[in-house]
Parts: sequence; structure tokens; C-alpha cells
Amino acid sequence: MGEKILVIGAVAAGTKAAAKIKRENPKAQIVVVTRDEYISYAGCGLPYYIGGVIEEKKELVVKTPEDFKLLTGIDVLTKHEALKIHKEAKTVEVEDMTTGEIKEYKYDKLVIATGASPFIPPIEGRDLKGVFSVRTVNDALAIRELVDQGAVKKAVVVGGGFIGLEVAENLHEKNIEVSIVELISHILPPFDEEIALYAQNYMADKGVNIYTGEKVLSLEGKDGRVSKVITDKREIAADLVIMSVGVRPNTELAKEIGLELGPTGAIRVNEYMETSERDIYAVGDCAENMNLITGQPAWYPMGSTANKMGRVAGINIANEEKDSLKGVLGTTIVKLFKLNAGKTGLSERDARKAGFEVETALVPANDRAHYYPGYREIITKLVVDKKTHKILGAQVIGEGVVDKPMDIIATAITFGAKVEDLEKLDLAYAPPFSTAMASTILAANVLRNKLTGRVQGINPVELKNRLHEVQIVDVRDEGSFMVGTIPGAVNIPSGELYMRAHALDKHKEIVLVCKIGKNAYLSYLKLKELGFENVKILEGGTNAYPYEKE
Amino acid sequence: MGEKILVIGAVAAGTKAAAKIKRENPKAQIVVVTRDEYISYAGCGLPYYIGGVIEEKKELVVKTPEDFKLLTGIDVLTKHEALKIHKEAKTVEVEDMTTGEIKEYKYDKLVIATGASPFIPPIEGRDLKGVFSVRTVNDALAIRELVDQGAVKKAVVVGGGFIGLEVAENLHEKNIEVSIVELISHILPPFDEEIALYAQNYMADKGVNIYTGEKVLSLEGKDGRVSKVITDKREIAADLVIMSVGVRPNTELAKEIGLELGPTGAIRVNEYMETSERDIYAVGDCAENMNLITGQPAWYPMGSTANKMGRVAGINIANEEKDSLKGVLGTTIVKLFKLNAGKTGLSERDARKAGFEVETALVPANDRAHYYPGYREIITKLVVDKKTHKILGAQVIGEGVVDKPMDIIATAITFGAKVEDLEKLDLAYAPPFSTAMASTILAANVLRNKLTGRVQGINPVELKNRLHEVQIVDVRDEGSFMVGTIPGAVNIPSGELYMRAHALDKHKEIVLVCKIGKNAYLSYLKLKELGFENVKILEGGTNAYPYEKE
Repeated sequence: MGEKILVIGAVAAGTKAAAKIKRENPKAQIVVVTRDEYISYAGCGLPYYIGGVIEEKKELVVKTPEDFKLLTGIDVLTKHEALKIHKEAKTVEVEDMTTGEIKEYKYDKLVIATGASPFIPPIEGRDLKGVFSVRTVNDALAIRELVDQGAVKKAVVVGGGFIGLEVAENLHEKNIEVSIVELISHILPPFDEEIALYAQNYMADKGVNIYTGEKVLSLEGKDGRVSKVITDKREIAADLVIMSVGVRPNTELAKEIGLELGPTGAIRVNEYMETSERDIYAVGDCAENMNLITGQPAWYPMGSTANKMGRVAGINIANEEKDSLKGVLGTTIVKLFKLNAGKTGLSERDARKAGFEVETALVPANDRAHYYPGYREIITKLVVDKKTHKILGAQVIGEGVVDKPMDIIATAITFGAKVEDLEKLDLAYAPPFSTAMASTILAANVLRNKLTGRVQGINPVELKNRLHEVQIVDVRDEGSFMVGTIPGAVNIPSGELYMRAHALDKHKEIVLVCKIGKNAYLSYLKLKELGFENVKILEGGTNAYPYEKE
Repeated sequence: MGEKILVIGAVAAGTKAAAKIKRENPKAQIVVVTRDEYISYAGCGLPYYIGGVIEEKKELVVKTPEDFKLLTGIDVLTKHEALKIHKEAKTVEVEDMTTGEIKEYKYDKLVIATGASPFIPPIEGRDLKGVFSVRTVNDALAIRELVDQGAVKKAVVVGGGFIGLEVAENLHEKNIEVSIVELISHILPPFDEEIALYAQNYMADKGVNIYTGEKVLSLEGKDGRVSKVITDKREIAADLVIMSVGVRPNTELAKEIGLELGPTGAIRVNEYMETSERDIYAVGDCAENMNLITGQPAWYPMGSTANKMGRVAGINIANEEKDSLKGVLGTTIVKLFKLNAGKTGLSERDARKAGFEVETALVPANDRAHYYPGYREIITKLVVDKKTHKILGAQVIGEGVVDKPMDIIATAITFGAKVEDLEKLDLAYAPPFSTAMASTILAANVLRNKLTGRVQGINPVELKNRLHEVQIVDVRDEGSFMVGTIPGAVNIPSGELYMRAHALDKHKEIVLVCKIGKNAYLSYLKLKELGFENVKILEGGTNAYPYEKE
């Protein structure tokens, strides 16, 4: 007889763990229970189903319980809710939600994969019809039905995180007027301000209304259907409201039996996916991770991590051999219309908060050879530890290829790469794929120039806050200058700099501005040669400056 | 007064070194000489100019000498040939090819960046009109002119390497009948057979004639123009012949003054780009590299590496501080119609040759979520050291995104990653970019299953050679089986395996076959459970089997 394994939860981590255990130990007796009616569904695909990019429901539901049984030999009981764990008796009470019958399941090993649920702030009107979160297949089905009926003219998305923005895009593409309300000062809260604002400008240009630094106070309805969103600054008409202010780990079952939770509120597990209780494992969105950079607990509820956790737990449950997941970087990526934005490791803000002395670079570059058709610009922000030169994090944004540099940098960070290592990577080059000096290498070059004092830079966020303290010199040609420059800038094209530099005040800080930073760097060297000491370049140039231009 | 720097060569490495020196030390007096009339041109873009993908010549020539002067303040003398280095006097004799005048240039430091030239085998007819190599802008201009005139109906490309294949594609897209003749048994010589043949089948399907294992003996002409290629097996009519059997480093100047060459025939340099002679540096295609995996000298004449070498030399020449390039992986990538093929590190063949005991995996996977429109398959081949589990190399091929996994793996190899590390990478996931388990992670999972004895695999190359020694069982459904399977296979769909396995001979090796390997793996576990011991799965399934099917 094989061991009895009970798995609670059947989206990514639960089914992965179950399948892996069965493959490792065909004799294991495995039951998976889930209160949902769908299993193995593509949670990350839900926004695209709403917009019809993913046409059919069946594409969203990766496997039915029947498919899963056929493939793995494992029974998944849907609409079965685990009510209570009895850790001494090693049983779980499970209710068949269809019949109301309650059964006791024995286990030798238990896997908790209860996932996470959307947090809905306790505001008035949250129970009105037309108010949704986007977490389950049923959420997506219901929203899509409303949209396809033409019942939605105006939608409000509460929360400017990934899911909210993806839903906003998909609704906008359905000719719905979409407004996003975000509590903090920019959308994409995990990103640094200059990157987030770049995305925000882009979304606004596409016609999405964005209200940041604004709090939703209540929802108003008419005949039981939502009709209005009331914020601390305005009222917004809405016949659909998407609540996406975040998710919380489902830890009720775990808490009841006293499993340790971590500081993030998710179930604490070690690198083997073991909880504080022998023979109980936790995987997926209900469980905590370790941040590889800070060594601190972190919680990144993501499908990619859930799959890894499920596999590791599966191996450890079925074998003497131990597999481990030491930690993650919180790598994420989002597509917003044609814009791509990704982040791995720590933001500048989080790195400073974690106590690092940081240096950063903000570097626009083409994703492919500029002479090869279809190339696009991307902007790379690198964050490094000033003392060790170790890469702490990166954010990349642009219409070009962003997932590749993200993955390169995430891989490098995993191995403790320094800026100097990043510069020397032997990346794949041919004109259809890259530039000879890949964007990541270029960004590392710039960052090392800063670290070694070859150039001083000023970040757009800082420049915006100090606009009136500095002399801003736009070194582009007059035509570009006329189209739009940093407020207060004067124009001295780089070619005229030797001749006209004497007009500048040597005792006042000078900020040189060009399109992407390169020309400003060359001009910087000229001014240095001329004896100017207090000079900086605007990092990322006008292209990466996300504030008002004049 | 600044140091006098002379740079010989002005494509990628030479101009990069010169520009970097000037930025580091504005007082440096730098002269760049080149016998070419173009500088900084996009050598890798030449095939695409021939086909018109790159429309204008000016897109190909990244910078004119005037641009370069304006940007850097450095003089580049085109059509100036360096004739002789006098290392004791520290001078170089340079001929102005326009006037015939010879001048002596003094240097404090010399940078040799003489590049590489096509090797043209000494066969009869090589000097006929219509016979070209593709190395310089003038080559590309001349070929494009012929093509645009409609003067080319049939072209023969001699050599199945990257440039040859890219030119073949571009000519084919111009409705020219193209034949490729390759000496070894498959195109893409650096790749392992099963990957190379996959590309070869793809090119053949597109309508390119491919003759492998065939030697070109001579070219025949009519009125001084090429008309026929004579191989050891056939005659091929041709009004255009592209010779692309490889390039050789230009080392004449270096040899004359006794600079050490490495075993690859290129100029030996250390990690600082210093040659065996004080104050003489060599960079770019004329210089040797170190292979990071083997620690042995290697020669990879590539633009991406040339730029890095130029930068390193520039920093070292201008500063006390030393920068270094420890080595490279020989990462390469090519687009062939819609197929992409990349390679990094060692092939299986080279790894064995270098003395490693290797394990490999061949794993097809989707590049993006299967429910997200536009996903494509790619096949990953991983090569690892069986003892240490360190990744030695990878090849990825398919219509999907190949450059990203290449760069992930190249980065991982750089840091000595093991299979287990690759499995745990926190890569960017969202449906438009990746699958939750990225293809690279999946390939690492499969490889670890092999390393730990969870599954035994057989590579298509080996199966093809042992077709008649094994029982081949295709576990797909009957419909798929009928469309095409491995010669000699019988069909037992996986669902019927428990019932029908008794018909198999337990004492004869069984090879299980499915579409990509996953179903075969699950069937493998079933057969193991049933007591079969001598079982293997066909790695990569029918999708990656590049030989005849029936």
C-alpha cells in the first residue's frame, strides 16, 4: 500500500504537487479536493478571456478533472471544501458542496495549496451587481458575458496593479470607457516612479482615464446595480467595477491548527516546502517565499513560482531525496497594449529601504539592430549595491522586447552577478534579435561609468524635484529642442558647446539633456575638459523623462 | 601632450577601442587607419541588404568617417593600408591607397583590429565574374545590384554556415532558385546533427535545394561569367555563386613582427587584450578568445565579442585601471525564414571531444502560454556534465522565441550553473511572454529526471542508427500514428497500454514515442510499474525526429 496524500487546492501548485508525487511513486494514493468547480485554470489568462483575446473558455481551463485523471490517475474532487484539519488524527473534514455530505479523509502527508483571494475593501456598495474581482474562471465568465451583451459602457478599475491594468486594457479594446483609480501616486505600485509613470503616460495616451493618489470611498447603485464610484476627489459613472486592489493568502485552515505564518501573512515554509508541522506542506499562493537578495521572507503569489513549489513538494513527499527552492526574485512582467514592463529583484525604493547604498542607471536602447526593420526602444533601469557592485534589481519598459532582458538579469542576479559580469555576458547576436551591444550590456556599461566616477547622472525623479536649482542645457539640435524639452532648459547643441560654454555659470550645477543620454555624456566630457566641475547628465534623456515637458 | 594611439581597422572593435580611449582620455591623440572605404558597417546586416530587408545602403553603414569625427573627435583615414609595423621604432608604415603615398605613423600604443577575411578555396573558376563572398559593404552592393537587375535566376551558396544560409534565404525570397552545397553531412556545422537537420528540413521545405556531404571541385564559366558549379556528385547551373566556407583572421601584420598566434591561428591576447608584445593590443576578429567552459583558446569572430574586446582594450590603454574579458561562450543565433536557431557553449559533440562525460535532453515546448494567440514551439537541447551537473551548452531551435532562452542559458553558464539551478530560475511570466514553466526550466526538469534515473531517453540520432534493434511503440492516438511515425513503430495508444503491454517483448529494448516526449514519459512510468525494465523514450518525440518517417 502506498502513502495517503491529500492535497487541498487544484489550480497550479496543488495539481503540480499531486502529479509529481504520482510520477515519483505510482503506489501513492492521492486525492485532491477543491471547492472550485474548475481545476488547473489559467489564472493569468483571465483578463485576456474578458477581452476575447482568448476566445474560448476551454482554452482557459487547461485540464478538466477527467483529463487530469486520465493523464495522472489522480482523482480531483471539485466542489469539495476542506473544512477542518485534524493534525493529530491526520484527517481532514471535507464537505461535498453539492450534497452537503461531510467526509473525513485520512492522510499520511498533507499538501495545502489553498491559494489566495482578492481583498475587497469594506466599502459601501461592494455587494452591488456589476462589481467584480478577477480571480476565478466564474469571475471572468460573468464579466465577459456582460461585456459581450453590450451592457457595459463605462468601467472603473479600482487598483493599478497588473491584473487591474490588464483588465483595463482588455475592456478598453472593447470600446468601453475605462477609468483606473489607484491609491498611491502612480500605477504599477511595485515599480519605481519614473518607470511607473512612463507606463501611466502610455496608458493615458491610449485613452484610459487614470486617477492616482485617489481613494475609493464607496460605490453607489441603482436598482441593485452599480452606477457610480465615489472617490475622495470625484464621482465616476460606472456600470462595471473591477476591484483589484490585491490578493491575500488563504490561510484560514492553516491558522486554525496553529501552523506558523510568516511576516507577510502567508504560511511559513522552509526551502523544502515544509510547514511548521510535520507531514504538512504548503505550496503556491498561500505560502511564503524567501527573497533571494534580502534573505527575508517575501510573498509573490505567481503561477511560475507556484509550479516550482508544487514540484519541489512533490519530490520531497515521494522521496528520501530532498529538492529545494531557496528563494525567488519576484520577477514579474506585464503587457499593456503594445507596451511591456518588467521587474526583477528590488526596486530602487525597496533596495534603499532594505539598507543598501545604491547606484542606479536609466538607459534607453534599441531592442534590435537599428537597421533591421521593426526594432523598438526599451528603457533599462539597473539598481546595484554601490559597495559590492552586485545587481539588486532591474526594471525594463518599452514597446520593444522586455521579457528577454528581464530574464537575463534575473538569471544573473540569481548567481550574484556584479555590474562587471553583466557587461561581459556573451549574449546571442544577429540583427533580427539584438544589437551587437545588447541593451543589458549597454546599461551595465553606463552604470559602471557612474560607479567609477566617469560620469555623474541625475535621475528624472530627482531632476523634476530640483528643476529650479539647476541650469538645464539641452544639447540636441534646435528642431528637437523646439518639439519639447525639460522645463527651463536652454539649448546649446553639442556641436556648439566648445564655443558657447562660456555663457554657462561654472558655479551652478549644470544638467545636460539629450534624447537618450549618450550625447549628453559626450557633452559632459567636453565640459569637464573645459574645466566645469558641477555637471550631470539627465539619465535616460527626454525619452525616459515622464513629467511635463515644455 | 597626450599619448599617441594608432588603431588599424575600423569596423566594430577598432572604432570601439578608439572611441573609448578618447572618452577616457580626451588628450589622447588617436588615428584610425583602414584600407576599406567604409567604417563601422554592419557586417551582420549584409545578407539582409542583399535581400532588400534592409533597404538603403546608408542603414548598413552605421557611421561615416565624418560622423565619427564629429561624435568622437577622432580622425579615421579610409583607404589607408597599414603595410608594416616597426615595433622597436614604434611606427607603422601606412599607404594612402588613393595617392600611393607612404607615411610613417608613430605610436605609443598600437591597436590591431584587422578583422578576418573570407577563405576562398583554391578551386578553378574562383575568379569568374558572379563569384562573391559576403564580407564587405562592396560585396553586398555588387550582389544586390545583380539581383535587382534581375540578372540572377539560379544561385549556389557554397557553405552551410550562418552567413551562407542567411544569404540563401534572402536570395530565395527574391525568387531566385538557390542551392546550398555543404561539405559535411549537414548544414549549420557547429550544431549537433539532430538540431542541424531540423533546420535543414525546414530550409528544404521552403524550397531551397540542399546538397550535403558534397564537395565543390570547380566553377565553370561562359564569357568570363560563372555558369556552373561542379561538385563531386553533380553539376549545378548558377549565375551567382556565393563562397561562404568560412573566414580566417587577418594576421599578416602581426606575424611579420613575430606576435604570438594562438592554436586557432588568430592573434593570442590575454584577458586585457594585450598581445605578446608590450604596447600592442589586438581586438576583434583578428584576435583569439578563451572559451569559458573549456578554458581553452577559441576563436569566435563575432560583432558582439568584437565590441566587448574594443571596450576592454580602450579602458586598459587609457587607464591604470584594468578591465578584462575572461572569455566567451561562442553564443550564436540565426534566423532562417521564420525559423530561429541558436547555440551557446559546447555542442554534445564538442563536449565529448573535450573529454566531458555528458548527459543531454531534447525537449520541445511552447514559447508562450498555449492559450495565448501566436505561441510557437521551440526545441531545447541541453548538454551537461554528468559528474558535476554543470551546464556545458545548449541549442534551441524553432519558429518560436529562441534568443531569450539562449541568453538565459548563456548567462547561467557564465556563472557555472547546474541543472538544478536552471530549474529554479525566477523568470518573467505572463501569458503573452512565456509559459508558467518556461521552456528552459522544463528542459532542465527533463534533464534532471534523466540524471537521477527517473527516465531513460534515446536521442533521435541514436534511434535512427538502431531502428532495427528495438521495439518502437508509438503511444499517440491512431490518427496521429497514421499521419507519420518512426519507421517500424507499432501503435499502442497510452490509454490502452495497461491492457496491451503484454504483447510487448520484455526482453527486447522498447522505445516509446509520442509527439514531444511527455506522453511517452507517462507511458514509461506505466511500463516500469508493469515490470518492464529495458524501456526508453524517444527524446523530443516525433516533433524533434529529423529523419524519414513512415
